[in-house]
Amino acid sequence: MHITKDTETDDNLLRLIAHIPTRSLSANIDPEFFVTLDDADFMRIAVFLAEKSYSEGGCPIGAVVIDNQTREIVGKGHNTLEQENHPYNHGETSAIRDAGRIDFSKTTIFTTLSPCDVCATLIYMRQFDRVVVGDVTSASGNEALLKEKGVSVEVLEDQKGIALYQKYRSEKPDQDLEDWKGLAAVNQRKKVA
Amino acid sequence: MHITKDTETDDNLLRLIAHIPTRSLSANIDPEFFVTLDDADFMRIAVFLAEKSYSEGGCPIGAVVIDNQTREIVGKGHNTLEQENHPYNHGETSAIRDAGRIDFSKTTIFTTLSPCDVCATLIYMRQFDRVVVGDVTSASGNEALLKEKGVSVEVLEDQKGIALYQKYRSEKPDQDLEDWKGLAAVNQRKKVA
Repeated sequence: MHITKDTETDDNLLRLIAHIPTRSLSANIDPEFFVTLDDADFMRIAVFLAEKSYSEGGCPIGAVVIDNQTREIVGKGHNTLEQENHPYNHGETSAIRDAGRIDFSKTTIFTTLSPCDVCATLIYMRQFDRVVVGDVTSASGNEALLKEKGVSVEVLEDQKGIALYQKYRSEKPDQDLEDWKGLAAVNQRKKVA
Repeated sequence: MHITKDTETDDNLLRLIAHIPTRSLSANIDPEFFVTLDDADFMRIAVFLAEKSYSEGGCPIGAVVIDNQTREIVGKGHNTLEQENHPYNHGETSAIRDAGRIDFSKTTIFTTLSPCDVCATLIYMRQFDRVVVGDVTSASGNEALLKEKGVSVEVLEDQKGIALYQKYRSEKPDQDLEDWKGLAAVNQRKKVA
Protein backbone atom coordinates (compact mmCIF):
# COMPACT_ATOMS: atom_id res chain seq x y z
CA MET A 1 0.00 0.00 0.00
CA HIS A 2 1.24 3.43 -0.94
CA ILE A 3 -0.70 6.45 0.27
CA THR A 4 -1.45 9.12 -2.33
CA LYS A 5 -3.63 12.23 -2.48
CA ASP A 6 -6.47 9.98 -3.73
CA THR A 7 -6.35 7.62 -0.73
CA GLU A 8 -9.52 7.95 1.31
CA THR A 9 -8.93 9.34 4.79
CA ASP A 10 -10.58 7.39 7.59
CA ASP A 11 -9.70 6.50 11.18
CA ASN A 12 -7.84 3.34 10.12
CA LEU A 13 -5.55 5.36 7.87
CA LEU A 14 -4.97 8.04 10.51
CA ARG A 15 -4.13 5.34 13.10
CA LEU A 16 -1.63 3.79 10.69
CA ILE A 17 0.04 7.19 10.15
CA ALA A 18 0.25 7.67 13.92
CA HIS A 19 2.15 4.38 14.23
CA ILE A 20 4.57 4.84 11.30
CA PRO A 21 7.84 6.42 12.54
CA THR A 22 8.13 10.03 11.35
CA ARG A 23 11.31 9.33 9.35
CA SER A 24 9.48 6.53 7.49
CA LEU A 25 6.48 8.61 6.43
CA SER A 26 7.99 9.97 3.21
CA ALA A 27 8.83 6.46 1.94
CA ASN A 28 5.19 5.44 2.22
CA ILE A 29 3.14 8.58 1.67
CA ASP A 30 3.19 11.04 -1.21
CA PRO A 31 3.74 14.60 0.06
CA GLU A 32 0.54 15.72 -1.74
CA PHE A 33 -1.52 13.53 0.57
CA PHE A 34 -0.88 15.74 3.60
CA VAL A 35 -2.50 18.76 1.94
CA THR A 36 -5.77 16.81 1.91
CA LEU A 37 -5.77 16.54 5.72
CA ASP A 38 -7.56 19.19 7.76
CA ASP A 39 -6.77 20.24 11.32
CA ALA A 40 -9.26 17.75 12.78
CA ASP A 41 -7.41 14.93 10.96
CA PHE A 42 -4.06 15.92 12.48
CA MET A 43 -5.71 16.13 15.88
CA ARG A 44 -7.09 12.63 15.35
CA ILE A 45 -3.57 11.37 14.54
CA ALA A 46 -2.46 12.88 17.87
CA VAL A 47 -5.37 11.06 19.56
CA PHE A 48 -4.21 7.77 18.03
CA LEU A 49 -0.76 8.45 19.48
CA ALA A 50 -2.48 8.94 22.85
CA GLU A 51 -4.30 5.64 22.32
CA LYS A 52 -0.98 3.92 21.53
CA SER A 53 0.44 5.23 24.81
CA TYR A 54 -2.65 4.08 26.73
CA SER A 55 -2.30 0.58 25.24
CA GLU A 56 1.28 0.51 26.57
CA GLY A 57 0.09 1.34 30.09
CA GLY A 58 1.09 4.99 29.75
CA CYS A 59 -0.60 8.39 29.86
CA PRO A 60 -2.85 8.90 26.83
CA ILE A 61 -1.60 12.24 25.56
CA GLY A 62 -0.19 12.72 22.07
CA ALA A 63 1.03 15.50 19.83
CA VAL A 64 1.88 16.13 16.19
CA VAL A 65 4.01 18.91 14.66
CA ILE A 66 3.39 19.88 11.02
CA ASP A 67 5.06 22.22 8.57
CA ASN A 68 2.62 25.07 7.96
CA GLN A 69 3.31 25.27 4.24
CA THR A 70 3.51 21.63 3.12
CA ARG A 71 1.31 20.27 5.96
CA GLU A 72 3.76 17.36 6.27
CA ILE A 73 4.30 15.81 9.69
CA VAL A 74 7.77 16.74 10.96
CA GLY A 75 7.47 15.37 14.49
CA LYS A 76 5.07 13.35 16.62
CA GLY A 77 4.99 11.47 19.85
CA HIS A 78 3.21 10.74 23.08
CA ASN A 79 3.78 10.87 26.80
CA THR A 80 6.40 8.34 28.01
CA LEU A 81 6.22 8.65 31.82
CA GLU A 82 5.60 4.93 32.11
CA GLN A 83 7.30 3.65 28.97
CA GLU A 84 10.65 5.42 29.46
CA ASN A 85 10.51 5.93 33.23
CA HIS A 86 10.58 9.56 32.12
CA PRO A 87 9.70 12.15 34.77
CA TYR A 88 8.52 14.87 32.39
CA ASN A 89 8.16 13.72 28.78
CA HIS A 90 4.68 14.85 27.74
CA GLY A 91 3.04 14.61 24.32
CA GLU A 92 4.39 17.99 23.27
CA THR A 93 7.98 17.50 24.48
CA SER A 94 7.97 14.08 22.81
CA ALA A 95 6.83 15.44 19.42
CA ILE A 96 9.29 18.34 19.63
CA ARG A 97 12.16 15.96 20.48
CA ASP A 98 11.14 13.82 17.50
CA ALA A 99 11.22 16.85 15.18
CA GLY A 100 14.81 17.63 16.12
CA ARG A 101 16.56 20.94 15.42
CA ILE A 102 14.17 22.72 13.07
CA ASP A 103 12.75 26.24 12.85
CA PHE A 104 9.50 25.82 14.80
CA SER A 105 8.28 29.31 13.84
CA LYS A 106 7.09 27.71 10.57
CA THR A 107 5.15 24.93 12.27
CA THR A 108 1.94 24.11 14.13
CA ILE A 109 1.71 21.74 17.08
CA PHE A 110 -1.45 19.72 17.70
CA THR A 111 -1.76 18.45 21.26
CA THR A 112 -4.56 16.28 22.61
CA LEU A 113 -4.52 18.04 25.99
CA SER A 114 -4.10 21.64 27.13
CA PRO A 115 -0.33 22.10 27.66
CA CYS A 116 1.20 22.07 31.15
CA ASP A 117 3.47 24.94 32.30
CA VAL A 118 6.63 23.25 31.01
CA CYS A 119 5.18 22.43 27.57
CA ALA A 120 3.60 25.87 27.20
CA THR A 121 6.95 27.47 28.07
CA LEU A 122 8.77 25.26 25.57
CA ILE A 123 6.20 26.10 22.86
CA TYR A 124 6.76 29.84 23.21
CA MET A 125 10.55 29.55 23.71
CA ARG A 126 10.85 27.57 20.48
CA GLN A 127 8.63 30.22 18.87
CA PHE A 128 5.90 27.97 17.47
CA ASP A 129 3.57 29.81 15.12
CA ARG A 130 0.41 28.00 16.23
CA VAL A 131 -0.86 25.49 18.76
CA VAL A 132 -4.10 23.55 18.40
CA VAL A 133 -5.51 22.09 21.63
CA GLY A 134 -7.71 19.00 21.55
CA ASP A 135 -9.02 19.05 25.12
CA VAL A 136 -9.68 22.04 27.35
CA THR A 137 -12.45 20.15 29.16
CA SER A 138 -10.14 17.96 31.29
CA ALA A 139 -7.47 20.62 31.84
CA SER A 140 -6.76 24.15 30.74
CA GLY A 141 -5.08 27.32 31.73
CA ASN A 142 -2.08 28.03 29.54
CA GLU A 143 -3.95 29.16 26.44
CA ALA A 144 -3.85 32.77 27.69
CA LEU A 145 -0.11 32.61 28.45
CA LEU A 146 0.62 31.26 24.97
CA LYS A 147 -1.41 34.01 23.28
CA GLU A 148 0.33 36.62 25.40
CA LYS A 149 3.67 35.27 24.17
CA GLY A 150 2.58 35.65 20.55
CA VAL A 151 1.57 32.06 19.75
CA SER A 152 -1.67 31.62 17.80
CA VAL A 153 -3.92 29.32 19.85
CA GLU A 154 -6.93 27.36 18.64
CA VAL A 155 -9.15 24.95 20.51
CA LEU A 156 -10.39 22.03 18.42
CA GLU A 157 -11.75 19.45 20.79
CA ASP A 158 -11.69 15.79 19.81
CA GLN A 159 -14.36 13.87 21.71
CA LYS A 160 -12.55 10.55 21.24
CA GLY A 161 -9.44 12.00 22.88
CA ILE A 162 -11.39 13.63 25.71
CA ALA A 163 -13.21 10.37 26.51
CA LEU A 164 -9.94 8.40 26.51
CA TYR A 165 -8.21 10.82 28.86
CA GLN A 166 -11.14 10.87 31.27
CA LYS A 167 -11.26 7.06 31.33
CA TYR A 168 -7.51 6.92 32.05
CA ARG A 169 -7.73 9.60 34.73
CA SER A 170 -10.37 7.64 36.64
CA GLU A 171 -8.38 4.40 36.27
CA LYS A 172 -4.93 5.75 37.26
CA PRO A 173 -5.33 8.89 39.38
CA ASP A 174 -1.83 8.61 40.92
CA GLN A 175 -0.09 8.26 37.58
CA ASP A 176 -2.11 11.19 36.28
CA LEU A 177 -1.14 13.39 39.24
CA GLU A 178 2.52 12.37 38.93
CA ASP A 179 2.46 13.37 35.29
CA TRP A 180 1.34 16.89 36.21
CA LYS A 181 3.02 17.61 39.53
CA GLY A 182 5.56 14.85 40.08
CA LEU A 183 5.86 12.00 42.55
CA ALA A 184 6.23 14.61 45.32
CA ALA A 185 2.55 15.52 44.88
CA VAL A 186 1.50 11.85 44.94
CA ASN A 187 3.40 11.29 48.19
CA GLN A 188 1.88 14.44 49.71
CA ARG A 189 -1.62 13.27 48.79
CA LYS A 190 -0.96 9.86 50.35
CA LYS A 191 0.27 11.50 53.57
CA VAL A 192 -2.85 13.65 53.82
CA ALA A 193 -5.18 10.71 53.07
CA MET B 1 40.16 1.37 42.22
CA HIS B 2 37.27 1.54 44.65
CA ILE B 3 36.27 4.93 46.04
CA THR B 4 35.71 5.14 49.79
CA LYS B 5 35.19 7.91 52.32
CA ASP B 6 38.99 8.03 52.72
CA THR B 7 39.68 8.66 49.02
CA GLU B 8 41.09 12.11 48.52
CA THR B 9 38.84 14.40 46.52
CA ASP B 10 40.53 16.26 43.68
CA ASP B 11 39.55 17.38 40.19
CA ASN B 12 40.64 14.08 38.64
CA LEU B 13 38.32 12.15 40.91
CA LEU B 14 35.40 14.53 40.32
CA ARG B 15 35.93 14.27 36.54
CA LEU B 16 35.89 10.48 36.79
CA ILE B 17 32.62 10.59 38.74
CA ALA B 18 31.12 12.89 36.11
CA HIS B 19 31.91 10.29 33.42
CA ILE B 20 30.72 7.17 35.27
CA PRO B 21 27.06 6.42 34.37
CA THR B 22 24.77 7.18 37.32
CA ARG B 23 23.57 3.56 37.58
CA SER B 24 27.20 2.41 37.85
CA LEU B 25 28.19 4.73 40.69
CA SER B 26 27.10 2.46 43.53
CA ALA B 27 29.21 -0.46 42.22
CA ASN B 28 32.34 1.69 42.36
CA ILE B 29 31.81 4.15 45.19
CA ASP B 30 30.91 3.55 48.83
CA PRO B 31 27.81 5.56 49.79
CA GLU B 32 29.76 7.15 52.69
CA PHE B 33 32.02 8.87 50.18
CA PHE B 34 29.30 11.24 49.01
CA VAL B 35 28.85 12.73 52.48
CA THR B 36 32.43 14.00 52.25
CA LEU B 37 31.57 16.13 49.19
CA ASP B 38 30.49 19.74 49.68
CA ASP B 39 28.29 21.78 47.36
CA ALA B 40 31.29 23.15 45.46
CA ASP B 41 32.36 19.57 44.69
CA PHE B 42 28.98 18.68 43.21
CA MET B 43 29.07 21.88 41.18
CA ARG B 44 32.50 20.90 39.91
CA ILE B 45 31.12 17.49 38.83
CA ALA B 46 28.45 19.39 36.89
CA VAL B 47 31.22 21.51 35.31
CA PHE B 48 33.03 18.34 34.23
CA LEU B 49 29.79 17.18 32.59
CA ALA B 50 29.74 20.54 30.79
CA GLU B 51 33.35 19.93 29.74
CA LYS B 52 32.41 16.47 28.43
CA SER B 53 29.66 18.05 26.32
CA TYR B 54 32.06 20.71 25.02
CA SER B 55 34.55 18.02 23.99
CA GLU B 56 31.75 16.36 21.98
CA GLY B 57 31.06 19.59 20.10
CA GLY B 58 28.04 20.39 22.24
CA CYS B 59 26.91 23.15 24.60
CA PRO B 60 28.95 23.09 27.83
CA ILE B 61 26.19 23.05 30.41
CA GLY B 62 25.85 20.28 32.97
CA ALA B 63 23.74 19.40 35.98
CA VAL B 64 23.72 16.99 38.91
CA VAL B 65 20.80 15.92 41.13
CA ILE B 66 21.56 14.64 44.63
CA ASP B 67 19.51 13.15 47.43
CA ASN B 68 19.46 15.74 50.23
CA GLN B 69 19.84 13.16 52.99
CA THR B 70 22.44 10.73 51.64
CA ARG B 71 24.11 13.25 49.27
CA GLU B 72 24.27 10.46 46.68
CA ILE B 73 24.01 11.40 43.02
CA VAL B 74 20.64 10.25 41.65
CA GLY B 75 20.83 11.90 38.24
CA LYS B 76 23.26 13.84 36.09
CA GLY B 77 23.69 14.94 32.53
CA HIS B 78 24.53 17.68 30.11
CA ASN B 79 23.03 19.54 27.22
CA THR B 80 22.58 17.37 24.09
CA LEU B 81 21.47 19.85 21.41
CA GLU B 82 24.32 18.76 19.17
CA GLN B 83 24.84 15.20 20.36
CA GLU B 84 21.21 14.04 20.13
CA ASN B 85 19.95 16.59 17.58
CA HIS B 86 17.77 17.54 20.53
CA PRO B 87 15.95 20.87 20.27
CA TYR B 88 15.58 21.49 24.02
CA ASN B 89 17.57 19.08 26.18
CA HIS B 90 19.52 21.31 28.59
CA GLY B 91 21.73 20.29 31.50
CA GLU B 92 18.81 20.32 33.92
CA THR B 93 16.33 18.40 31.74
CA SER B 94 19.07 15.87 31.02
CA ALA B 95 19.86 15.26 34.69
CA ILE B 96 16.16 15.05 35.58
CA ARG B 97 15.54 12.56 32.77
CA ASP B 98 18.49 10.51 34.04
CA ALA B 99 17.04 10.47 37.58
CA GLY B 100 13.77 8.97 36.36
CA ARG B 101 10.52 8.90 38.35
CA ILE B 102 11.64 9.93 41.83
CA ASP B 103 10.32 12.37 44.46
CA PHE B 104 12.32 15.48 43.61
CA SER B 105 11.11 17.32 46.72
CA LYS B 106 13.89 15.49 48.58
CA THR B 107 16.62 16.51 46.17
CA THR B 108 18.90 19.38 45.15
CA ILE B 109 19.84 20.18 41.57
CA PHE B 110 23.22 21.74 40.76
CA THR B 111 23.32 23.45 37.38
CA THR B 112 26.34 25.13 35.83
CA LEU B 113 24.22 27.89 34.27
CA SER B 114 21.23 29.91 35.41
CA PRO B 115 18.16 27.92 34.26
CA CYS B 116 16.17 28.95 31.18
CA ASP B 117 12.38 29.41 31.37
CA VAL B 118 11.66 25.75 30.51
CA CYS B 119 14.14 24.33 33.03
CA ALA B 120 13.04 26.73 35.78
CA THR B 121 9.42 25.73 35.15
CA LEU B 122 10.31 22.04 35.27
CA ILE B 123 12.25 22.54 38.51
CA TYR B 124 9.28 24.08 40.31
CA MET B 125 6.70 21.73 38.72
CA ARG B 126 8.68 18.72 39.94
CA GLN B 127 8.90 20.46 43.32
CA PHE B 128 12.66 20.45 43.80
CA ASP B 129 13.70 21.46 47.30
CA ARG B 130 16.78 23.39 46.24
CA VAL B 131 18.65 24.59 43.19
CA VAL B 132 22.30 25.65 43.21
CA VAL B 133 23.37 27.83 40.27
CA GLY B 134 26.99 27.85 39.10
CA ASP B 135 26.90 30.85 36.76
CA VAL B 136 24.78 33.98 37.00
CA THR B 137 27.48 36.01 35.24
CA SER B 138 26.77 34.73 31.71
CA ALA B 139 22.99 34.47 32.14
CA SER B 140 20.45 34.96 34.86
CA GLY B 141 16.88 35.86 35.51
CA ASN B 142 14.91 32.90 36.78
CA GLU B 143 16.30 32.83 40.32
CA ALA B 144 13.47 35.15 41.47
CA LEU B 145 10.77 33.03 39.78
CA LEU B 146 12.11 29.88 41.45
CA LYS B 147 12.14 31.49 44.88
CA GLU B 148 8.60 32.77 44.36
CA LYS B 149 7.53 29.19 43.58
CA GLY B 150 9.00 27.95 46.86
CA VAL B 151 12.31 26.54 45.65
CA SER B 152 15.38 27.37 47.73
CA VAL B 153 17.94 29.03 45.44
CA GLU B 154 21.65 29.42 46.01
CA VAL B 155 24.30 30.92 43.77
CA LEU B 156 27.67 29.18 43.98
CA GLU B 157 29.70 30.32 41.03
CA ASP B 158 32.38 28.03 39.60
CA GLN B 159 34.99 30.07 37.73
CA LYS B 160 36.08 27.06 35.66
CA GLY B 161 32.50 26.60 34.44
CA ILE B 162 32.02 30.32 33.76
CA ALA B 163 35.23 30.51 31.72
CA LEU B 164 34.28 27.42 29.69
CA TYR B 165 30.82 28.76 28.86
CA GLN B 166 32.17 32.16 27.83
CA LYS B 167 34.78 30.52 25.58
CA TYR B 168 32.08 28.40 23.94
CA ARG B 169 29.72 31.34 23.53
CA SER B 170 32.36 33.33 21.64
CA GLU B 171 33.22 30.29 19.47
CA LYS B 172 29.68 29.19 18.57
CA PRO B 173 27.28 32.14 18.92
CA ASP B 174 24.63 30.58 16.64
CA GLN B 175 24.56 27.28 18.52
CA ASP B 176 24.35 29.21 21.76
CA LEU B 177 21.40 31.31 20.54
CA GLU B 178 19.64 28.21 19.19
CA ASP B 179 19.99 26.56 22.57
CA TRP B 180 18.16 29.46 24.23
CA LYS B 181 15.62 30.61 21.66
CA GLY B 182 15.56 27.98 18.94
CA LEU B 183 16.59 27.92 15.30
CA ALA B 184 13.85 30.50 14.62
CA ALA B 185 15.91 33.12 16.49
CA VAL B 186 19.08 32.17 14.57
CA ASN B 187 17.26 32.57 11.24
CA GLN B 188 15.79 35.92 12.34
CA ARG B 189 19.26 37.17 13.30
CA LYS B 190 20.66 36.11 9.91
CA LYS B 191 17.83 37.93 8.12
CA VAL B 192 18.52 41.13 10.03
CA ALA B 193 22.30 40.90 9.48
